[in-house]
Amino acid sequence: MSHTTATAASGPNREHTLQFRVRYSETDQMGTIYNSRPLEWFEMGRSELLRSVGLPYTEIEARGVYLPLVEAHVDYDGRARYDDLLQMTSVATMVGRARLRCANRITHAATGLGVAHGYTVHAFTDTSGRAIRPPAWFLQLFR
Amino acid sequence: MSHTTATAASGPNREHTLQFRVRYSETDQMGTIYNSRPLEWFEMGRSELLRSVGLPYTEIEARGVYLPLVEAHVDYDGRARYDDLLQMTSVATMVGRARLRCANRITHAATGLGVAHGYTVHAFTDTSGRAIRPPAWFLQLFR
Amino acid sequence: MSHTTATAASGPNREHTLQFRVRYSETDQMGTIYNSRPLEWFEMGRSELLRSVGLPYTEIEARGVYLPLVEAHVDYDGRARYDDLLQMTSVATMVGRARLRCANRITHAATGLGVAHGYTVHAFTDTSGRAIRPPAWFLQLFR
Amino acid sequence: MSHTTATAASGPNREHTLQFRVRYSETDQMGTIYNSRPLEWFEMGRSELLRSVGLPYTEIEARGVYLPLVEAHVDYDGRARYDDLLQMTSVATMVGRARLRCANRITHAATGLGVAHGYTVHAFTDTSGRAIRPPAWFLQLFR
Repeated sequence: MSHTTATAASGPNREHTLQFRVRYSETDQMGTIYNSRPLEWFEMGRSELLRSVGLPYTEIEARGVYLPLVEAHVDYDGRARYDDLLQMTSVATMVGRARLRCANRITHAATGLGVAHGYTVHAFTDTSGRAIRPPAWFLQLFR
Repeated sequence: MSHTTATAASGPNREHTLQFRVRYSETDQMGTIYNSRPLEWFEMGRSELLRSVGLPYTEIEARGVYLPLVEAHVDYDGRARYDDLLQMTSVATMVGRARLRCANRITHAATGLGVAHGYTVHAFTDTSGRAIRPPAWFLQLFR
Repeated sequence: MSHTTATAASGPNREHTLQFRVRYSETDQMGTIYNSRPLEWFEMGRSELLRSVGLPYTEIEARGVYLPLVEAHVDYDGRARYDDLLQMTSVATMVGRARLRCANRITHAATGLGVAHGYTVHAFTDTSGRAIRPPAWFLQLFR
Repeated sequence: MSHTTATAASGPNREHTLQFRVRYSETDQMGTIYNSRPLEWFEMGRSELLRSVGLPYTEIEARGVYLPLVEAHVDYDGRARYDDLLQMTSVATMVGRARLRCANRITHAATGLGVAHGYTVHAFTDTSGRAIRPPAWFLQLFR
């Protein structure tokens, strides 16, 4: 049985949805998910979104491009607990000339009740951390 | 783009500064800190701030009060690596009637160069997760 | 040097296999998985194994029983990187009267090359942490 | 106020002791520390031990040498909770020709009651992951 995420990509709008279960390691003593987990899940969402459009992040880094965060935001909408099956939709958009913005919404898969939503904004850098312009092969994903 | 000004703080505040080193476990393959670490460090900052004003968070939970996050924001200002000595200043303020806001600024201890800044906004709940008014013994910290 | 044989397993066992991808958050600056990740994955393996035999861990905790670790061991067999698709087989066995032992083997799904193997040994406690005998409804899973 | 670890190194036996507090992010819904945390703390212990003998791990990596784990073991001795002040003693020894072994013992700083003990065994590799002999400048630490 697979524990990988069930996914469903939808073409040109650079949107992607996946499902995953909350791990025990992701809880804290409040009995719910620790507050930094949504950022880890947003990253998983970006990762699967990029794979779904044919440009896995491993390939991006292999071409010498990093996408470090310049900004992150999370709004917590409701409780999630160990073993809950969650659904996350991620949407990627270019913002201005040199920023990628990924918005994410996490809900309970069964009920649709909100868990968290938020976004990350990414710069484009070379492997030494210097800002670069987004490569043409990246930008064409958003045309 | 930044939400930093979205929830303007007001009223008297409490401030606390600490230093810590980046752990190896806090890095990722980009060679710098993983993007969710600032949220873990903000939590450490709140924890020490509350201890410094005489109300450790363990005591708050022992009295049946939780402070779950309703919002979190991080702006990434510069690179930080394994073993770097960082300094963080945390400032706590009551916002409106029932929200605690903690703003944090992380810099390199040696140079003052920025690493990240941001904030968390907290609700007050009982141990079952139901929203409550901030107790008087909590509010008096901010008078 | 290895403790792998220290706690010999005996009796009938339950086995379960799953697949998952390495998350970016699970890497460190060495470019491979951080060394504590196998313990988190072993926990995910136990979790899915227990679900597969009809006794989800949430149900075990709901009945007032915890399975805290008394021992853990990991042998690292090879490198694994971000986005690698891994396969893990977990085997659970009762050891002696009051210990559950879960052995796990993680390999690259595509090649079968080893990543890590190891085990965890668990006590049975009530929710206050006091040792208890394994409940009959738990033991019958291993008959 | 500093949140860095209070440390005390003692010369030729390659032993080092530090103190630290359990972070909220290090707990899980059982109300105690999550089971993989000792491995993260062992790493912090190695890190401070190497600094105390004048060879910070950053310097080791700067010289092109990695110390990946080949084995890790944890025995869990007692409960530890959020904000508990813990003490850890780490002892490093060369084992055979090409292995470094670090043993660690974690106790409650106030009472000496045990939390966890265990060890990690490390290989020496170059930055591409190929096994190498321990450099002379490393071995002389243990003469």
